Amino acid sequence: MAGNSIGTAFKITTFGESHGKAIGATIDGCPAGLDIDINFIQAELDKRKPGQSKIVTARAEEDKVEILSGVFEGKSTGTPIQLLIWNKDQKSKDYSHIKDSYRPSHADYTYDVKYGNRDYRGGGRSSARETAARVAAGAIAKLLLAQQNIIITAYVDRVHDIAIPANSHIDFTQIEKNIVRCPDADTAAKMEERILAIKKSGDTVGGSIKCFVQNVPVGLGEPVFDRLNADLAKAITSINACKYFSIGSGFEGTFQKGSEHNDLFESKDGIIKTTTNNSGGIQGGISNGETIVMEAGFKPVATLIQNQKSVDKEGNAVDVMGKGRHDPCVLPRAVPIVEAMTALVLADHYLRNKTSRV
Amino acid sequence: MAGNSIGTAFKITTFGESHGKAIGATIDGCPAGLDIDINFIQAELDKRKPGQSKIVTARAEEDKVEILSGVFEGKSTGTPIQLLIWNKDQKSKDYSHIKDSYRPSHADYTYDVKYGNRDYRGGGRSSARETAARVAAGAIAKLLLAQQNIIITAYVDRVHDIAIPANSHIDFTQIEKNIVRCPDADTAAKMEERILAIKKSGDTVGGSIKCFVQNVPVGLGEPVFDRLNADLAKAITSINACKYFSIGSGFEGTFQKGSEHNDLFESKDGIIKTTTNNSGGIQGGISNGETIVMEAGFKPVATLIQNQKSVDKEGNAVDVMGKGRHDPCVLPRAVPIVEAMTALVLADHYLRNKTSRV
Amino acid sequence: MAGNSIGTAFKITTFGESHGKAIGATIDGCPAGLDIDINFIQAELDKRKPGQSKIVTARAEEDKVEILSGVFEGKSTGTPIQLLIWNKDQKSKDYSHIKDSYRPSHADYTYDVKYGNRDYRGGGRSSARETAARVAAGAIAKLLLAQQNIIITAYVDRVHDIAIPANSHIDFTQIEKNIVRCPDADTAAKMEERILAIKKSGDTVGGSIKCFVQNVPVGLGEPVFDRLNADLAKAITSINACKYFSIGSGFEGTFQKGSEHNDLFESKDGIIKTTTNNSGGIQGGISNGETIVMEAGFKPVATLIQNQKSVDKEGNAVDVMGKGRHDPCVLPRAVPIVEAMTALVLADHYLRNKTSRV
Amino acid sequence: MAGNSIGTAFKITTFGESHGKAIGATIDGCPAGLDIDINFIQAELDKRKPGQSKIVTARAEEDKVEILSGVFEGKSTGTPIQLLIWNKDQKSKDYSHIKDSYRPSHADYTYDVKYGNRDYRGGGRSSARETAARVAAGAIAKLLLAQQNIIITAYVDRVHDIAIPANSHIDFTQIEKNIVRCPDADTAAKMEERILAIKKSGDTVGGSIKCFVQNVPVGLGEPVFDRLNADLAKAITSINACKYFSIGSGFEGTFQKGSEHNDLFESKDGIIKTTTNNSGGIQGGISNGETIVMEAGFKPVATLIQNQKSVDKEGNAVDVMGKGRHDPCVLPRAVPIVEAMTALVLADHYLRNKTSRV
Repeated sequence: MAGNSIGTAFKITTFGESHGKAIGATIDGCPAGLDIDINFIQAELDKRKPGQSKIVTARAEEDKVEILSGVFEGKSTGTPIQLLIWNKDQKSKDYSHIKDSYRPSHADYTYDVKYGNRDYRGGGRSSARETAARVAAGAIAKLLLAQQNIIITAYVDRVHDIAIPANSHIDFTQIEKNIVRCPDADTAAKMEERILAIKKSGDTVGGSIKCFVQNVPVGLGEPVFDRLNADLAKAITSINACKYFSIGSGFEGTFQKGSEHNDLFESKDGIIKTTTNNSGGIQGGISNGETIVMEAGFKPVATLIQNQKSVDKEGNAVDVMGKGRHDPCVLPRAVPIVEAMTALVLADHYLRNKTSRV
Repeated sequence: MAGNSIGTAFKITTFGESHGKAIGATIDGCPAGLDIDINFIQAELDKRKPGQSKIVTARAEEDKVEILSGVFEGKSTGTPIQLLIWNKDQKSKDYSHIKDSYRPSHADYTYDVKYGNRDYRGGGRSSARETAARVAAGAIAKLLLAQQNIIITAYVDRVHDIAIPANSHIDFTQIEKNIVRCPDADTAAKMEERILAIKKSGDTVGGSIKCFVQNVPVGLGEPVFDRLNADLAKAITSINACKYFSIGSGFEGTFQKGSEHNDLFESKDGIIKTTTNNSGGIQGGISNGETIVMEAGFKPVATLIQNQKSVDKEGNAVDVMGKGRHDPCVLPRAVPIVEAMTALVLADHYLRNKTSRV
Repeated sequence: MAGNSIGTAFKITTFGESHGKAIGATIDGCPAGLDIDINFIQAELDKRKPGQSKIVTARAEEDKVEILSGVFEGKSTGTPIQLLIWNKDQKSKDYSHIKDSYRPSHADYTYDVKYGNRDYRGGGRSSARETAARVAAGAIAKLLLAQQNIIITAYVDRVHDIAIPANSHIDFTQIEKNIVRCPDADTAAKMEERILAIKKSGDTVGGSIKCFVQNVPVGLGEPVFDRLNADLAKAITSINACKYFSIGSGFEGTFQKGSEHNDLFESKDGIIKTTTNNSGGIQGGISNGETIVMEAGFKPVATLIQNQKSVDKEGNAVDVMGKGRHDPCVLPRAVPIVEAMTALVLADHYLRNKTSRV
Repeated sequence: MAGNSIGTAFKITTFGESHGKAIGATIDGCPAGLDIDINFIQAELDKRKPGQSKIVTARAEEDKVEILSGVFEGKSTGTPIQLLIWNKDQKSKDYSHIKDSYRPSHADYTYDVKYGNRDYRGGGRSSARETAARVAAGAIAKLLLAQQNIIITAYVDRVHDIAIPANSHIDFTQIEKNIVRCPDADTAAKMEERILAIKKSGDTVGGSIKCFVQNVPVGLGEPVFDRLNADLAKAITSINACKYFSIGSGFEGTFQKGSEHNDLFESKDGIIKTTTNNSGGIQGGISNGETIVMEAGFKPVATLIQNQKSVDKEGNAVDVMGKGRHDPCVLPRAVPIVEAMTALVLADHYLRNKTSRV
């Protein structure tokens, strides 16, 4: 059943397969009058695009986005904004070996059983290539949020077991200074080294991303089910390879006592703030004006350039060798995707909150 | 904007405040012909209800559920099933002290700013009392799933820093043998002791719950946004106090290499299985027939029986003293809630999957 | 699949069968801070309730509404408003004769085939009794709209072939002056006489209702599918027995030439208006500030106090005799239902329009 | 707010403006394994396309549809099917005269007030050009329904005041034999003559379309709001220029007595049927197995090749002269659109009904 839309007031629907003609998204519900900066959208896509550095897949996609509708004289018109990205560098012959075999920890098997007719080329719809459409749509969400001064920033906090040391000072301006998208230069260097070593061995690694949303107004989130944190959890865990999602104090917070964990309120210059932010900017499912703090973990990429044992459709034992062009570590390219999904949720809830009071 | 419904094909809408007249849920989309065992629903509610043991809140709610519609001669009719639970033991005077003050890490402040007109009695809509409606509705989802032999089981894996030792043998039949709902008797005893000590000190603790879904057919989940794992993440993080959600290998899995993490396929007796289950039963957002494995972490309850510094509506500094009847640890009562939310998502996706092929 | 909700931003879900314990509705999305006048809601219900006059069914339902949640100190809180109406005068034995037989032009047969387990008492869920929940919810929508000075008025324009003469002056204040709810006293008298005669013969008649929405702001409606007129068409044709829906010039308008039908714009005192209103207040699916004008036609009630030939479940020929208490003409009681459905759509679109521009 | 999607299980989202780069639709929820016959989709579009005869607009759009995703080796894959139609013959200069003026009975004024940033070229999003995307998507819905032998047929019943005589024998095979799409040859000839005369005078006319759905299984429709008739009413009245919608006996039926109008059940060869079909194939919102019978009326096209008085944005009186290429009568091209909207609703409800029973 239909499952390719997300959002209620600011809603996107995506389409497209890895090796089909094109991928794209429809944004329905973008308010009229928003300046649509195509260069900004492209810049966001460029952060996600393959071939951008030596630590990501070599697939040579330009990922150039076209806007087919919903923008007139540079501004949104309130009608659906159609974003289109043509697939160009499909080397589909790379995938004929998995036509009837199931790559371990991929979606080949589940798609085959569920749908019966599977576009096996490059993983088809289950490929992370689909996330380019999310990034393009998320860029427009970011433009909407920027009008409210809401800023979303994500970075790579850990690759394999190499993490930014706890309590390090984080300078967001450093994130794009290295190809890992880790704001700590020393850690970034180690991460890059690790990724290259892993790549050389034909293996892969995962890690974690932290994401922050600054300047969120108080009041976003629609309890009890469409809590802001719950919608963020869904949006972010819908990204390929995501294994966990946490908010605020996260994992560590569940080891604390209430007297340690509670965020005390205080008033400064007439503004109510909390002295700590274990809540991660959300209380009772509604933003409280503090910075939203999230972490998401990603498993190692399933495609290895190694021989793996598996089965074919009939259950016969087969060897599956990773071919094609793949990422040894998804983290650097996942940063803009996490930001995009966060932006889509925030834009949606920003609009939904407009009807909370008479 | 409307945010109190969850599910698409099997959809519930809940209503009710902690100290209002009643709470309840409408189930819309339950297939006709299902045996509705009211005793089973009540038994599920009894696992969540207050006053059940010395380690939970003393509020004396009977939590007796009534079915007002949608069931005829013991079976569902395909029309909305209305579940109603009257509130009986509202001691609302307990809460007059927080009418204009904000309890730390509660939803008082965010509800006040968002809505302006806040039912402060017992936390109003933001109270975990609302989850009784989820448990009642989830029980009917469980009845639907039981017809497919799909079984959902959750238990307390950790309270504060007391966890079941890694690699322990877990016997699900032991879960209800103690008041903590921890299947490991020794660990349960330590947890109970810890909770009682914390209660005595007027403080609270959190912890984690593990949840398993057995006998899931291959094919549930609607990528790319309504992935089974993403809908589970949303449903479970929509429970009060949930700080993190993980699937399969979870946190640990993100430290592994692809060659360690990948689940190899094999065929046994004509059935395709995986030799490991790091995927946690879901690949590409779709169930793969293995047991679904999830973990959710809960922060310590925010209400302390201690003095805490806070502010009132005008920003004046105030002291907030926890009164009322509260849980020193939410975990034992969260077990049936996690199961209920899981059941609601599975029931929805079980129905949604019926249209996946011509 | 779930089909008992309507609306997006202002959403209602109804439940209940004719002879079950209760019927009711959940309103999700009502903005906080709205004065909830329970007497107004009851007054709306009283217009729909059975037993109100000699020309409607004698079922003696008090139809007293209770609010179980979502209202605090007289105002909405932004959380779900639960409305409950107990069924009191269920004479279910009246219906045992149709347990296995299909009343002509009723929903007995279709419910039986679709669901298998049919609550046959009083028509169960398919009974027009369900519309009481709509009227209660619609009353709250009216309260929200009244804040914007948006006024909804419906009346009976025709019963059988007795219609208010074309071009009559219509005085809305006269609608409630007679039991037919027809603002033209002479016509109302004839209608009443006709209904009584039909009732005596054990037969039934239909007719039409006109509905007007005044003071609608320009801009309500969300093309291309959620046009204001399309959502009104759905809402009103979802009322039992509705056979047609028209907007503006309606049936007659389709006989005109464009040069006759077009509504010319003019500017008066700086306000742009149209000189005629064939568009019925909606252009391109969006309100244009003129009065919304609609007509809905209702077929004669299917329950006759006559013998009718039919079949039972097994296809055997049977005679079905109308028993129970029924309306000889649904029109007088349909007036508040048409108003309620109109109010629900307008309230929803009033809220939805709040996000149309940055 | 988002309003460009329709359907729940079989859901489409459309995009595009009359004179933008392209228009199109995403189908989300089409079951996998359906043969997607691109020639059939194109043939449906050809029935709607401009320039097909001397009685429709001369705009020279090829309306060639491309499928960008969701189809693999000729069959649907269960993932979103993206349909794209490039706009080719945009003569946007034709429209500069209405940049700041409001054409009578068009959506210029309402879009301008609602959104502020209006793509005035050819009516932008409010143009009936958007319906090409509906026809393309509807063609795929027809392919799905054809597997169940469900057949949808619409034809022009009336143009201006020229209607097929009551009780005429209708032969569906004759519909495409003339350019009006009226199955009665004599009436079609008169209609064509009338349309040509109206065109010559720079004026326009409306009329009505009848639509039939044969071989519908019993059980489609989801009361109480998503009744099959209500969803059809919404879908069809969401077509530009539609002024009324009726089902079954429609307008005439509301003049009958219950004893005349009721459809008696009888059993023939073990199959329960009704002896008449005043219900129009739907009872209680659910299909009863009889042919679904609908009528929809369309107003005369608003664009005249005549001078009309109007106002500009500032309220100044202006003359608006119809330029561009327009239809003197929308009916012949509306036939495939009515069929498409009907197909979309039926496909959706066909899928939704799969979960009605355990």
